[in-house]
Amino acid sequence: MMKTWYLHTMRVRYQETDQMKVVYHANYLNWFEIGRTEWVRHAGISYREMEEKGLLLPVTHLDVSFLQPAQYDDVVTVCTHMAEMSALRVRFESKVVIGDLASSHDGVYVGDEPPGETLVEGKTRHVWVNAAWKPVRLDREAPVFHTKLLAQIQSAHSAD
Amino acid sequence: MMKTWYLHTMRVRYQETDQMKVVYHANYLNWFEIGRTEWVRHAGISYREMEEKGLLLPVTHLDVSFLQPAQYDDVVTVCTHMAEMSALRVRFESKVVIGDLASSHDGVYVGDEPPGETLVEGKTRHVWVNAAWKPVRLDREAPVFHTKLLAQIQSAHSAD
Amino acid sequence: MMKTWYLHTMRVRYQETDQMKVVYHANYLNWFEIGRTEWVRHAGISYREMEEKGLLLPVTHLDVSFLQPAQYDDVVTVCTHMAEMSALRVRFESKVVIGDLASSHDGVYVGDEPPGETLVEGKTRHVWVNAAWKPVRLDREAPVFHTKLLAQIQSAHSAD
Amino acid sequence: MMKTWYLHTMRVRYQETDQMKVVYHANYLNWFEIGRTEWVRHAGISYREMEEKGLLLPVTHLDVSFLQPAQYDDVVTVCTHMAEMSALRVRFESKVVIGDLASSHDGVYVGDEPPGETLVEGKTRHVWVNAAWKPVRLDREAPVFHTKLLAQIQSAHSAD
Repeated sequence: MMKTWYLHTMRVRYQETDQMKVVYHANYLNWFEIGRTEWVRHAGISYREMEEKGLLLPVTHLDVSFLQPAQYDDVVTVCTHMAEMSALRVRFESKVVIGDLASSHDGVYVGDEPPGETLVEGKTRHVWVNAAWKPVRLDREAPVFHTKLLAQIQSAHSAD
Repeated sequence: MMKTWYLHTMRVRYQETDQMKVVYHANYLNWFEIGRTEWVRHAGISYREMEEKGLLLPVTHLDVSFLQPAQYDDVVTVCTHMAEMSALRVRFESKVVIGDLASSHDGVYVGDEPPGETLVEGKTRHVWVNAAWKPVRLDREAPVFHTKLLAQIQSAHSAD
Repeated sequence: MMKTWYLHTMRVRYQETDQMKVVYHANYLNWFEIGRTEWVRHAGISYREMEEKGLLLPVTHLDVSFLQPAQYDDVVTVCTHMAEMSALRVRFESKVVIGDLASSHDGVYVGDEPPGETLVEGKTRHVWVNAAWKPVRLDREAPVFHTKLLAQIQSAHSAD
Repeated sequence: MMKTWYLHTMRVRYQETDQMKVVYHANYLNWFEIGRTEWVRHAGISYREMEEKGLLLPVTHLDVSFLQPAQYDDVVTVCTHMAEMSALRVRFESKVVIGDLASSHDGVYVGDEPPGETLVEGKTRHVWVNAAWKPVRLDREAPVFHTKLLAQIQSAHSAD
């Protein structure tokens, strides 16, 4: 089964560099987060709206490999694939590749690996929690969101 | 009347640099904020506690001059003087100077200008608001905090 | 004489918020910088290229008013006007307004004030320096850049 | 063989929080970096000095578990253990625990696990590169640094 990558292209900001003249490594995690926000938007809901209903999705684990550094003013694409979703847990895979993939692929790429040079790749794990940081089941807490997110995953698979 | 500067010394972080190999200019505003937090702590209360009671003190205006850049691993001191406080409004003056002034002056310096080379200096204006961002009077909303902050300003003056 | 505002639209990132649930005030300075980068790009050169030739444009002074806070996932437009340019110095004016002005105005707005609700407005002053942070004259150090930047300012004026 | 943890205590900054009212997850990586900087300082050299000689130590891989979130104004201790060092590669382990461990343990803790509640723990891998990002051997490129770093690791072991 192939992966479905949602693509979001952006430019590297000056503030994101450090004195090695490359992007400071922690900033890639912000980019992964931007990618996840856009993934959710593709499903027809907004992560902001989810938070306003008291549903949070904090990162519980991450694993990142830094292959090549990005530089100021580079155009990069954050590629985001939801690797797993249950009522309790979510796993995303993220890759940052050089260049504007979003325009050339119309926002979505289906395949094991997004084309082009990978700068950074990572995996994040998340749990659904409520405003008091207690774990919750998404299907009970927010069944409409649950249905929409599942629909997006299934539509991704049917694109295989 | 002389100014009373509360001193907080710290080291420049790697993440705070940019590719000019100096501290990115927006980061000085974080340091000003750290200085204000420590100013409040000197008054025997914590800014965190104030926020937990629904009292916020957002910045409404700032004016900053950048004289010399700080560099990674520099030891710098943030000097914070409360220039004005009413029940509605607060004005702070902040200076970042090179070196560890806090140890050599035991945390407080009384005088118009903290000694040593100034890197950055600025003025910030603030208003008291509640959790809904509506302006409030500090003396009505939180009379104990009001009294403690006033006491700190007066003790500063009596140190002249 | 009217002002020419170059418009750059973007979304507020999660990482840019703080626990007041609004954008942390120092982040608006990053947005001003993004606006200046895009201003320069409109002139047919890139700020990155300028830096690679050893020409830097650090901020020496800033003055910012915070009117309304931006929130996570808001669409905002950074509007950038070059208020003055000499061979030694540059002054920019920046405004952040809510909504996507860039699309609706095709990237440029001529007029005293960009339309829509202003969140934050500021003025920054800059000097041209070389890699050793010594002031330089732009017309001598980089005459081609100087010509292109001037051309952009004049084309802005002729748009009046 | 027990681990030797070098301890660095600090306060959580306002700017480090996000709208979940906890520290934004990417910021823990900055703290790990601060811990590594202080580890190197314990060896009698400064990381800044190493960079000035053209020796960089970028992160190539990281693996982080987020157990409990830190909050604004919390006092936290970053604990840093060098797990492996060769002429080519370095591996660090980092833990962030709540409270001021540095004062109570005089800066160093020997044992498998630093005491107290762990908020975040992670492992980072690094390679030595030169200013052109080419891998180098530390013992050839900077034999004095190599000797000092090894001495610190051995002194750590002899403390068992």
